[in-house]
Parts: sequence; structure tokens; C-alpha cells
Amino acid sequence: MYEGVVQDLIDELGRLPGIGPKSAQRIAFHLLAADPIDVRRLAEVLVQVKEKMRFCEECGNVAEEERCRICRDTRRDLSVICVVEEPKDVVAIERTREFRGRYHVLGGAISPIEGIGPDDLRVRELMQRLADGAVQEVILATDPNLEGEATATYLARMLGPLGLRVTRLASGLPVGGDLEYADEVTLGRAFEGRRLLDA
Amino acid sequence: MYEGVVQDLIDELGRLPGIGPKSAQRIAFHLLAADPIDVRRLAEVLVQVKEKMRFCEECGNVAEEERCRICRDTRRDLSVICVVEEPKDVVAIERTREFRGRYHVLGGAISPIEGIGPDDLRVRELMQRLADGAVQEVILATDPNLEGEATATYLARMLGPLGLRVTRLASGLPVGGDLEYADEVTLGRAFEGRRLLDA
Repeated sequence: MYEGVVQDLIDELGRLPGIGPKSAQRIAFHLLAADPIDVRRLAEVLVQVKEKMRFCEECGNVAEEERCRICRDTRRDLSVICVVEEPKDVVAIERTREFRGRYHVLGGAISPIEGIGPDDLRVRELMQRLADGAVQEVILATDPNLEGEATATYLARMLGPLGLRVTRLASGLPVGGDLEYADEVTLGRAFEGRRLLDA
Repeated sequence: MYEGVVQDLIDELGRLPGIGPKSAQRIAFHLLAADPIDVRRLAEVLVQVKEKMRFCEECGNVAEEERCRICRDTRRDLSVICVVEEPKDVVAIERTREFRGRYHVLGGAISPIEGIGPDDLRVRELMQRLADGAVQEVILATDPNLEGEATATYLARMLGPLGLRVTRLASGLPVGGDLEYADEVTLGRAFEGRRLLDA
């Protein structure tokens, strides 16, 4: 046990995801020796994030207002919704500049092991957004793993009766990767999804 | 880039030691979804640690007053000082309940690669503490690695002329460990330091 609030800080840091007791200790001593201005800025930003940030009422992404920056942007294509698991997926897709529609953040993926079912995700909110018929395509961009695939399969079945285009992101070899290092499932998917090249 | 202060929080967290961009992102979203009371407590403890904590004027350990809890404790043996690299080493040794003397925290170890020399450590402060002749033994408990050994060797040479007992913690097999899993250096040390058992 450390003296005074140092132990409190180590305890609080140790509650954060991915930070074990050793990391918590190291960070605490880093902060103890750091410039007080830097530490105060971190503390302020922590308070501000809870005061200012919320989740977009429309898509579930992080937002500083009722609706997020993307949902407020009138230049986005209203006919396409890209369904993702987490806000970080929105950031990753935005970085590609390939997609000009809107998003729908589920807040996770179906995982029987972790006890997460469709009711724990923002599925009902997605169905409500599709009710007026303005959306013509839903791109299922959940992760290409067990949970993400299960979620995509579930959503595809839910969306089937609505008669809109439901697509899934392509699986295949990572660009710039080495074929010999690809795992067999990815390589198998790359074969399945092979494209005809122009002659 | 995330909207608003979320990105600020990710940036601030990413400056902490051992937290990369992915971890910073994960922690930020954990905090975004966490109970505001918990986040506020973390923020408060951060501010408090800078306001309340300092380093002990005598031994360099963390302290809430001018001198740390151990240096203030009149029951400690004043004739022995245990020299360690970091405050976390004090905590580790206190846990053993084997040592009743006081500590001296160097604030690191000699490391030419990282540009840390004796002048960057609290060596002068150690020499000052030994000046009045009350201390009879100095236990060098720096880490049993390259930097720790170099520091112990340096200190042993500095302390030699003072004519006091200078000792080093024993190296050997970890208790409860398996001999076959010990690395060869440790096993070699265990042979060197072998004890005669009572008949």
C-alpha cells in the first residue's frame, strides 16, 4: 500500500479497461512526477467528456449535440446506412473517404458467451430509421469475426422483408499483405470473392 | 478524428506511459459510457495527487508530508538504510516485513543508454544522510539487472571509504519456482551463493 492518495489513484487507474496493477502503478508515478498543468488538463478533459459528450440520438455515434456531426451534415447521402459495431468503426471508415452515406452504431455485436443479444444492441432504432422508406441500401460493416458475422446474419434476416439492398463488406487478402501469411479462412474468402478482371 | 473533447481525451490518455492509441481509444469509450460519478472521482484523485503528494525530503519516497510515513516512524531502525531504485520497490520490500530500517530512493538506476548517470539519481542525498555516522549498514537493493548491478557497483565504490557495512540482496532461485525453468545466470548465482545447511 502506498501512502495517501497515490494508492487511491492506482486503484482508480486499475479500474480502467486493459490497465493492470503494474500499469496503474507506472502511470501513477508518471503523473506524480509530471507537470501539474498536464495532469490538471487530463482531469479537466475527463470532466468535460462527461459533461459535453453524449451519443447521437439518430445513429448512436458519439456527439457533442443531439445529433452527431455526420447526421447533421446535409451533404451526406441519405439513401445508404452503414451499420457498425462501435464509434471507432465510424472513424476507421471515414478515414477511407469511400463512404458518403450515414452510419448506425449498434453499440456492440451479438455474443452469447458475453450474454449480449439483439435487445442489447441498437437494432430497434435501426428498424425505426428504415421505416420511412428513404433508405435504399444497408451495408453491414460489423467485424469479420464470429460475433460480427452472427450479428450481420441476424440483421440480414431482420431486414429481408423490407425489400432493400442489404450488403456486407468484402472479405479477402489485406492490401499490401503477403499471401503466404494470410490465414486459411481469409485466403478461402479471397477465393470465394474473386473478381473477373477486364481483358 | 473524433468529435469534440473525445479526441482531446484520447490524445491526453495516449500521452501516458504504456498507453498506445488503441488503448487510449478503448479507455476513452469506457469512460464515455461509465457512471459520471466514477469519472469525476478519477478526475478529483488526479488533481489531489498533484496537490497533496510530494517526495520525502529525507529518503525520496512518495510522501504526504515533508517526510514520508517510514521516515516519520520512530520505531524504525536508524542504523540501516536500504537503497532502492523506485518507490514501488519500497512497497515490495515493506510487504515482506523482513526489513525494519529506513530506505533511500534513488529515482532510477545508472543507464548510459538512456543517458542516466549518478548525477541524475539521489546519490548526493544518500552521502549526506550517511555523514553523521549513525548508519552502520547500507543494503543495496537495486534491481538484479544490468542497470541495477551497475548502480550497486558504483555505490559500493562510493561508500567504500566510509567504512560501513555495504551489502547486496542475494540472487538465486525464486522460492516456489522450478529449477529447470530458471535461466542460467540465476542458476549460476544460486550456486555461487549456496549456503551450508546445519547437520
